[in-house]
Amino acid sequence: MDVKQIQAPIEQHMEVFEEKFRASMKSRVALLDKITHYIIKRKGKQMRPMFVFLSAEMCGGVTESTHTAASLIELLHTATLVHDDVVDDAAERRGFFSINALWKNKIAVLVGDFLLSRGLLLSVEKKEFRLLEIVSDAVREMSEGELLQMEKTRTLNLKEDIYFEIIRQKTASLIAACCASGAQSAGKDEETIEKMRLFGEYVGMAFQIKDDLFDFGSAEDIGKPTGIDIKEKKTTLPLIYALNQSAWTLRRKITGLVKNHNENPDKVAQVIAFVMNSGGIEYATQKMHEFKEKALEILNEFPASPSRDSLEGLVLYTINRKK
Amino acid sequence: MDVKQIQAPIEQHMEVFEEKFRASMKSRVALLDKITHYIIKRKGKQMRPMFVFLSAEMCGGVTESTHTAASLIELLHTATLVHDDVVDDAAERRGFFSINALWKNKIAVLVGDFLLSRGLLLSVEKKEFRLLEIVSDAVREMSEGELLQMEKTRTLNLKEDIYFEIIRQKTASLIAACCASGAQSAGKDEETIEKMRLFGEYVGMAFQIKDDLFDFGSAEDIGKPTGIDIKEKKTTLPLIYALNQSAWTLRRKITGLVKNHNENPDKVAQVIAFVMNSGGIEYATQKMHEFKEKALEILNEFPASPSRDSLEGLVLYTINRKK
Repeated sequence: MDVKQIQAPIEQHMEVFEEKFRASMKSRVALLDKITHYIIKRKGKQMRPMFVFLSAEMCGGVTESTHTAASLIELLHTATLVHDDVVDDAAERRGFFSINALWKNKIAVLVGDFLLSRGLLLSVEKKEFRLLEIVSDAVREMSEGELLQMEKTRTLNLKEDIYFEIIRQKTASLIAACCASGAQSAGKDEETIEKMRLFGEYVGMAFQIKDDLFDFGSAEDIGKPTGIDIKEKKTTLPLIYALNQSAWTLRRKITGLVKNHNENPDKVAQVIAFVMNSGGIEYATQKMHEFKEKALEILNEFPASPSRDSLEGLVLYTINRKK
Repeated sequence: MDVKQIQAPIEQHMEVFEEKFRASMKSRVALLDKITHYIIKRKGKQMRPMFVFLSAEMCGGVTESTHTAASLIELLHTATLVHDDVVDDAAERRGFFSINALWKNKIAVLVGDFLLSRGLLLSVEKKEFRLLEIVSDAVREMSEGELLQMEKTRTLNLKEDIYFEIIRQKTASLIAACCASGAQSAGKDEETIEKMRLFGEYVGMAFQIKDDLFDFGSAEDIGKPTGIDIKEKKTTLPLIYALNQSAWTLRRKITGLVKNHNENPDKVAQVIAFVMNSGGIEYATQKMHEFKEKALEILNEFPASPSRDSLEGLVLYTINRKK
């Protein structure tokens, strides 16, 4: 299934959503309008709204509440991306900012806060309180997850369970909120909402493992390894597994390389080769498929429908994507 | 009235609040606990919770909702301060970051988001939806106000009305939310809530003008002029008035100095002297007193009580403070 086929059962809703989303970012401040215009132009595949709408559709049908949920989550997700720019800008410049970049930094923080407040106002106006609960919880988890990752980043003996906890919080919690709020907006009971939350969580785990695999350019992909995580000294599942499999001397050598590579391409390539030779790619790929299977199992508890097929398609798309 | 006397009618509530506030920031992430511990240690005079509690007390009495309101607003205010650190750190280093400062930058954004989410969760759990509405609106105004200021900063012919709009949004809106949510938590009708919102707005305007006056070290104060706003090319009321009063040639000379002072102390001092000699300090001081008077007029519509006296004391404290 391609994105067009996946979107088919909710195509009209997505069109209405785009209009509403654009309108929700309007401001009297010209600078802000310029920035949100730019944000809209470079928008991604809108995976999160798709999860919200497809979950709602499968759970009984899209309602006005579904639109509020999709807007709140997309505003929040956009706010997060804008806040991420604060750091991404930095990385590009290797630790040095121009005054101009600093302005952008401050603007990024403020625009993020603005978008978040618009999402909140929208939900409060529509009296969507259960939705607010689902989403505020995700915001807390996302920031805790990122901070947990930062706390642990330089620990080269990161345990697998902490890695899973980090990706559950920083990535999976928002996709979980998409699916839970989709079900909730369709009027489903708490049990079904929790089931859909868990579905989204499993998808999110698989999604992040896939993301982490790109760093090593796994065999099934066309792309070359990026090595960005290794350069940033982020320890992800393939490396964790590879280190755990290795004898003490080799482990010491590799952790030494990770700690002191100084972005030397040969040293980074050595780490990547080590991970590939130690079965780290296969192990992480297997774990990704385990999470995918758990997600699909939950889907199968729902009666067959075009929206269920699309959700299945979206799960498979998540783990088969090429970037 | 000193702070101790002002606090007298709500002393016990403030003590309970401190405990609750501390508890609301708890997290399983050790790094986060370390940072929030640091935040609690360097806490300020807690003016905003005082406005919430005193407004509630004057409007019928502090309730559990008042505590939720004070926590939400103080969490939000703290989040804003932490986000401000993103830029303050930068200023200190004149546009250059160490890797270490960058980390702090990312952490500042995430900790701010975390604190905000805790405030939201607290209010959602307690089903304080009117409160959420009051506060989300303030968040929107604060970020819009800051962005409006950034958009206009380099405009040296900033109009007085735009200056007032900027300070209303970026500073007064949060104090307005304190007083409105205080009244709301005491069970008052919408008319009284709006009255208290306006009271807070006037106080906030006076507060920000006072802040802007510190830059010039006005005659009534002991402190020396700081000139920070001038260095950052921020145009505030005393300078706006002084420029408007001046002949075209002088105006051109001063705007040239503001634009190209390169932080040269003599040039900054020349701008300060110009503002002092053109009556800019007196004018801004007079405007500050006008807002103070408007605030006190609203207070006088309420029956006399110790909490009303304290609110009056807090207003006077706001404009008489020495830093």
